Amino acid sequence: MKPIYQANSRLDLSFTRVVGVPRALVWRAWTEPALLKPWFCPLPWTTIDCEIDLRPGGSFRTTMQSPEGGQFPNQGCYLEIVPHEKLVWTNALLPGFRPSLPVATCGSDDANFMFTAMLELADHADGTRYTATVIHADEAGCKKHADMGFEAGWGAALDQLVAMIKRGI
Amino acid sequence: MKPIYQANSRLDLSFTRVVGVPRALVWRAWTEPALLKPWFCPLPWTTIDCEIDLRPGGSFRTTMQSPEGGQFPNQGCYLEIVPHEKLVWTNALLPGFRPSLPVATCGSDDANFMFTAMLELADHADGTRYTATVIHADEAGCKKHADMGFEAGWGAALDQLVAMIKRGI
Repeated sequence: MKPIYQANSRLDLSFTRVVGVPRALVWRAWTEPALLKPWFCPLPWTTIDCEIDLRPGGSFRTTMQSPEGGQFPNQGCYLEIVPHEKLVWTNALLPGFRPSLPVATCGSDDANFMFTAMLELADHADGTRYTATVIHADEAGCKKHADMGFEAGWGAALDQLVAMIKRGI
Repeated sequence: MKPIYQANSRLDLSFTRVVGVPRALVWRAWTEPALLKPWFCPLPWTTIDCEIDLRPGGSFRTTMQSPEGGQFPNQGCYLEIVPHEKLVWTNALLPGFRPSLPVATCGSDDANFMFTAMLELADHADGTRYTATVIHADEAGCKKHADMGFEAGWGAALDQLVAMIKRGI
């Protein structure tokens, strides 16, 4: 059976890093609100609210706050959950799989920016192999996400995640 | 745990009917291309192609043909599959959970018409209790689906499904 996800370099952004922390703790940092809020936004942005209902169709909601105090809610739902291995969610559907209305994203006037995100974790001799992928409907959406600094932003957040785990959770 | 789907009468359309055919055969008529094509479009429209990859993220694709020969492809993916009980799919995501671009629907200029559909089946003394529900992002999408004749269209298709099963499959 062919895999569900078919990579498309024109539409997808992805990076892989090896991080020196255990896979089970990376999973917890992504799936427990109290452990997600400290690292999810690269400072000086912060994550001031988070709701996680970890089942297909369940809510994944965060509210980011800019240094100036502006608040930017993000609402999506989970699509696929394989504990400690794979987490897939989208902002194209709301909880209960209801289609979402296009919404403006922080720092952008573009009203139509949908993506599905995949986090994949695997054991590695040095800790955990961490792959993050975001897939889009069209090249414009992909380019926009790249221009927003997908890899730098998610990479800086990952640094914060790793630092949090190393401090002890 | 609260149900994933939260009904909203302003955004959702739904109807329930009891049909005098077995639940297992209704399920097959919805999940096997050779058994879906004969009934899926109310005549004189026909379904000339169908692809079903029955897993979350798998393809649900049909091509409808108008009496004048116009062809209207519909592509979506499955979200939730409980054999003989529940089938959920959306056109807001393509196979592999990739967000879909807004596309024009047959007979409409509206370029942004996303919905998630749910089929629910239950045993009934007279056969099968059949509930079809479509949920939308906003009232405009819901009204459009109502104006397109959701209940009449899906009802006529269901009549064709029941007739097909009674002829023998």
